[in-house]
Amino acid sequence: MEATVASLVEHGWAGTTTTAVAQRAGVSRGAQLHHYPTRAELVIAAVQYIGAARIAEIREQATDLPTGPARTAAVLDMLARVCTGPLFHAALELWTAARTDPDVRAAVVPLEAVIGRESHRLTVELLGADESRPGVREAVQQTLDLIRGLGLADLLTDDGARRRALLADWARHLDARLGS
Amino acid sequence: MEATVASLVEHGWAGTTTTAVAQRAGVSRGAQLHHYPTRAELVIAAVQYIGAARIAEIREQATDLPTGPARTAAVLDMLARVCTGPLFHAALELWTAARTDPDVRAAVVPLEAVIGRESHRLTVELLGADESRPGVREAVQQTLDLIRGLGLADLLTDDGARRRALLADWARHLDARLGS
Repeated sequence: MEATVASLVEHGWAGTTTTAVAQRAGVSRGAQLHHYPTRAELVIAAVQYIGAARIAEIREQATDLPTGPARTAAVLDMLARVCTGPLFHAALELWTAARTDPDVRAAVVPLEAVIGRESHRLTVELLGADESRPGVREAVQQTLDLIRGLGLADLLTDDGARRRALLADWARHLDARLGS
Repeated sequence: MEATVASLVEHGWAGTTTTAVAQRAGVSRGAQLHHYPTRAELVIAAVQYIGAARIAEIREQATDLPTGPARTAAVLDMLARVCTGPLFHAALELWTAARTDPDVRAAVVPLEAVIGRESHRLTVELLGADESRPGVREAVQQTLDLIRGLGLADLLTDDGARRRALLADWARHLDARLGS
């Protein structure tokens, strides 16, 4: 699975063949075919692995966050790191492939719904947001969509300086909107 | 060029071979090779064509926008239509391919900088935003990044209802931040 992610990050979807993944993982084609008889089965396993790793990455990075007034900015910074990192790039390869490949789409769509809900839930928790207050749910969703858009903007060139300035500004407005 | 876009939208980057594009366009391979001797030259032409078409689409859609208090929401709705449409999907194929293919990257990166500046300039103009006021430039940039993220969220499933609710909410915040 790690070889599949590394191959997606380095060579993209088209360059991620079962043969290339087996070579990178140092396993024989026979052993690979024993575990994943078809490319579709390897893809489904990779989609699940990448999805779980994306959530695990957020949880892991969330343990070091400061409390107090700097927390919102730190949460945004952490989410932005995840959305500019290798797991986001691997996921982007899967989303793009899923747009035109029905087998990939069938694997990706149900899992993305789960990841979307879990990312939202985790972000609410990390921000200490009270979703029963009007406008808070929308503010959290906009935050996650903004950060996904910033991830896309960072794909080909380093957008770090612009992103940091925008997120510092967003953190101030978000605090006001969360009422915290 | 239209055949190249249609092929990217329907079959993705990997499925968009020069042969497939020539067939779709109804031109002979000889005629195609006369205009675009290599795949790289076809790709550069396609990148430029898609970039110009993305800007033209915004300009064209901008002519029907209402004035008055409904304008901000209408501008956001128009930008979201562009970011969930076929030209965004074609551009996403190019961005994803550019991440792992140096030839595509060399064609895409300089053009994306131009498109980024032009989209920003057009959005400022359409919103009647005064960028000399503090925070206005950031609010416009956040708007474009948010809408790009919403485009990505709509890639595999129809995210229209959630997007419309989020953008209606954002329009109110944006008006307050633009001071209009």
